[in-house]
Amino acid sequence: MTGTRVAVAGTFGPLHDGHRNLLETALKYGDEGLIVGLTSDAFARASRTRDVPPFDRRRAALETAFGDLDEWGREVEIRRLTDEHGIVSDEPDIDALVVSPETAPELAAINDLRRENGFDPIEGIVAPYVLAEDGERISSTRIVRGEIDEHGRVRN
Amino acid sequence: MTGTRVAVAGTFGPLHDGHRNLLETALKYGDEGLIVGLTSDAFARASRTRDVPPFDRRRAALETAFGDLDEWGREVEIRRLTDEHGIVSDEPDIDALVVSPETAPELAAINDLRRENGFDPIEGIVAPYVLAEDGERISSTRIVRGEIDEHGRVRN
Repeated sequence: MTGTRVAVAGTFGPLHDGHRNLLETALKYGDEGLIVGLTSDAFARASRTRDVPPFDRRRAALETAFGDLDEWGREVEIRRLTDEHGIVSDEPDIDALVVSPETAPELAAINDLRRENGFDPIEGIVAPYVLAEDGERISSTRIVRGEIDEHGRVRN
Repeated sequence: MTGTRVAVAGTFGPLHDGHRNLLETALKYGDEGLIVGLTSDAFARASRTRDVPPFDRRRAALETAFGDLDEWGREVEIRRLTDEHGIVSDEPDIDALVVSPETAPELAAINDLRRENGFDPIEGIVAPYVLAEDGERISSTRIVRGEIDEHGRVRN
């Protein structure tokens, strides 16, 4: 590989093994560094009814996860994300966006937006879903609901 | 990057700049080699009404394109693909599948199939569309119809 700078974005709270897989994929491919868009509290809460941990707590959990997962010594920059297409639409200097399968269909629109802004289109890197013990996807919503823990173990 | 073996599949005929972008993306990310699934004539023609060049001609064009695009000296293996999920469902030893945005939604189902076969799920790498001079996508269908050439130039 020769120089891939990746972006990844999300709310990442509560952090779970699906997020960790996304972060590990970003580390693996991002040999020229990672920009992480972490949603602001206002932006994260506007689209959700569930509880979202405060920004600083989500950032600290992200930093711990990167510390655990980074085998490559990548450069990681965390930025506060205040709207849906921040970073991908205003950062010319990225090569790829790491997404979950659920966000993959937005890649074409993201590249339309980049072209309108005069930026090169980027690749999407789609990390596979991580399944919980019960075969369903791990999600923060399921964790907050008390169905599973952050590693996808079913709570009884 | 540390060891990514990629697969890419298609009919690739007539070969155009959208295909070349897909092949270049596969070369860039595939530092542990590429497996290329090239559709058999029977499989390629079953789903299409347009003319499809014969397998050997499509393979020769692919080999020329790889020769032009490979800056990295990658190992490339071309296999005949006779059904929709060949390679991704029967090849355990790949890390990622390079796809166009139109195929990206199939990644989740591909990984379900891999899990059923006891294989690890793989990443998807989504190469952006390449636009023709008129702002629409380049496609083999448009070339065969005589609207554009293989580089997306509008034919008058």
